[in-house]
Amino acid sequence: MTLPATMKALELRAYDARPESLMLVERPVPRPGPAQVLIRIAAAPINPSDLMFVRGLYGFKKALPAIPGFEGSGTVVAAGRGLMPRILLGRRVACAAADIRNRWGTWAEYLVTSAETVVPLSRSVDLEQAAMMLVNPFSAWALMDIARRGHHRAIIQTAAASALGKMIVRLARRFSLPVINVVRRREQVEDLRSLDARHILVSTDPDFDRQLTLLARRLGATLALEAVAGDLTRRVLDAMPRSGRVLLYGGLSLEAAQLNPAALIFEDKHVSGFWLTAWLRGMTMWDRFRVARQVQGMLAGDLQSHVQARVPLESGAAVLEQYAQNMSAGKILFTAMSPRTDD
Amino acid sequence: MTLPATMKALELRAYDARPESLMLVERPVPRPGPAQVLIRIAAAPINPSDLMFVRGLYGFKKALPAIPGFEGSGTVVAAGRGLMPRILLGRRVACAAADIRNRWGTWAEYLVTSAETVVPLSRSVDLEQAAMMLVNPFSAWALMDIARRGHHRAIIQTAAASALGKMIVRLARRFSLPVINVVRRREQVEDLRSLDARHILVSTDPDFDRQLTLLARRLGATLALEAVAGDLTRRVLDAMPRSGRVLLYGGLSLEAAQLNPAALIFEDKHVSGFWLTAWLRGMTMWDRFRVARQVQGMLAGDLQSHVQARVPLESGAAVLEQYAQNMSAGKILFTAMSPRTDD
Repeated sequence: MTLPATMKALELRAYDARPESLMLVERPVPRPGPAQVLIRIAAAPINPSDLMFVRGLYGFKKALPAIPGFEGSGTVVAAGRGLMPRILLGRRVACAAADIRNRWGTWAEYLVTSAETVVPLSRSVDLEQAAMMLVNPFSAWALMDIARRGHHRAIIQTAAASALGKMIVRLARRFSLPVINVVRRREQVEDLRSLDARHILVSTDPDFDRQLTLLARRLGATLALEAVAGDLTRRVLDAMPRSGRVLLYGGLSLEAAQLNPAALIFEDKHVSGFWLTAWLRGMTMWDRFRVARQVQGMLAGDLQSHVQARVPLESGAAVLEQYAQNMSAGKILFTAMSPRTDD
Repeated sequence: MTLPATMKALELRAYDARPESLMLVERPVPRPGPAQVLIRIAAAPINPSDLMFVRGLYGFKKALPAIPGFEGSGTVVAAGRGLMPRILLGRRVACAAADIRNRWGTWAEYLVTSAETVVPLSRSVDLEQAAMMLVNPFSAWALMDIARRGHHRAIIQTAAASALGKMIVRLARRFSLPVINVVRRREQVEDLRSLDARHILVSTDPDFDRQLTLLARRLGATLALEAVAGDLTRRVLDAMPRSGRVLLYGGLSLEAAQLNPAALIFEDKHVSGFWLTAWLRGMTMWDRFRVARQVQGMLAGDLQSHVQARVPLESGAAVLEQYAQNMSAGKILFTAMSPRTDD
């Protein structure tokens, strides 16, 4: 197979969220080193974590210039030395670049990455859905796994109308785990109702704290999946029954999380964080394959992502802004594929 | 032994911190019920937790009117039915009333309490030091126990110049555990230097965050004993190395604790609380006796409390204010004993 000499890519030059810091460039197509593969990218989404990354607010900063885009899908078109790369050659895969050591990202025509982090796709899986598989569906699966292993009778989740929030609603229904869904705007209630979500509270309602407290205590919701931070963390923790635990996995408000000391001291409550990368590192490769198979089996169902737009790399920084303004409308995909109508 | 019909006591009528809500009253001396003892109080301190309680900010509120005072010492002068009460009759004891079901408190001439919560004193122990044994020395012991069981290479503590903070400095030296001591005012540094504290940082210094980060990472301080809350919680957690844990045991700033979401998510950091009452409940009676013996052995040494003043119950609300204004000068004791000079 002959590879082109150069490729198009979006290149980040500064962590300052200015449109001109993310530029479309022409770069040499990278070559895979030992244990690496080269993937021709089919589709790559914009995720909230990508927005955090380009603003310099993510868990790490890559050396600049770097190509953003933490996940995507495509076909392995070249293999470096090693057994794994050779096995993957020619296969359709989901891939990630959420590693500080990898300067390449998925917002490009090609990506070089470690063969170990690549997930081979089964034939039935759609490449577009697979492009959004490693961040949201894996996170939803991981959070549900934590809830089930912790034997929580019920859970609370904030940002419930997000793509991840909706996956959690559907997974929890599959496992018969009651969820108290917290959204910020009244318009989001209908959206969740259409998924058969039963308990939906709006955090801007004057009666919110009392309702959340009553419901959380009645259902025994001792785990909260919290993605907003700010004062909402305090309100959720205060509402929970004794020994409640908040698992923070995002900071959408861009504010510090607040906590009432008395809740921690006198009520044995806890706060910790969840990061998918760390969760995956803590697994054996066998377990990762098992989860990848299960998640793929649900990509057309409970773990399906909704797409609001498919755009070429040329759209660049402008679509980041569009996505930031209206995340709940669905994912925006950078795609090399021919345009399709929305599903 | 003939008991008087009435006793003097300080009675709390409202959780509003107004001086007139804490009144000296004359009340019938209570009689011990089954499994209870009546103690003639020798001395009872004012602790920060008492201040929180009378302000309605403690972990629970007793039904009013109630007598405050969570700990003290004295002699068992009457016993209810049961083996334990009979064994304790006539003995010198340390006692507590930090139980929501007990309307009696130690800021009185007599206290009725459950025989189970009473600690018999060995002959060598001073009644005055014993009056301050169950809150600070037990907490210091418990926190050090948590630090040692967690195999932390070093710890951070805030409010290091407090009575409890100084006990931790001395205990940590005994166990060769490095402590980074955080104080708020420059004057407190000398105070800690006199205890041979090695690492002392002032949180109002402009260079504080950088210094704390360097020191915490160099020493591997993965546990922080935090009693202030507010923004200091965030600064301490951010400064700690990966997987650092903040154990909040107080909220002296009266503010919500702040946390940086990224520290929880990307650095595997945790926040939880410590409450002595819960810690004691989690122990077997045998373990409690063992700790009580060890703590008593150190009451004249590493776990000694400094007394700034001894006052009669008649001083009432006025001395609460005096103590609140200057806690680091030492404890104030309500005492039935004849006045002594300061040690």
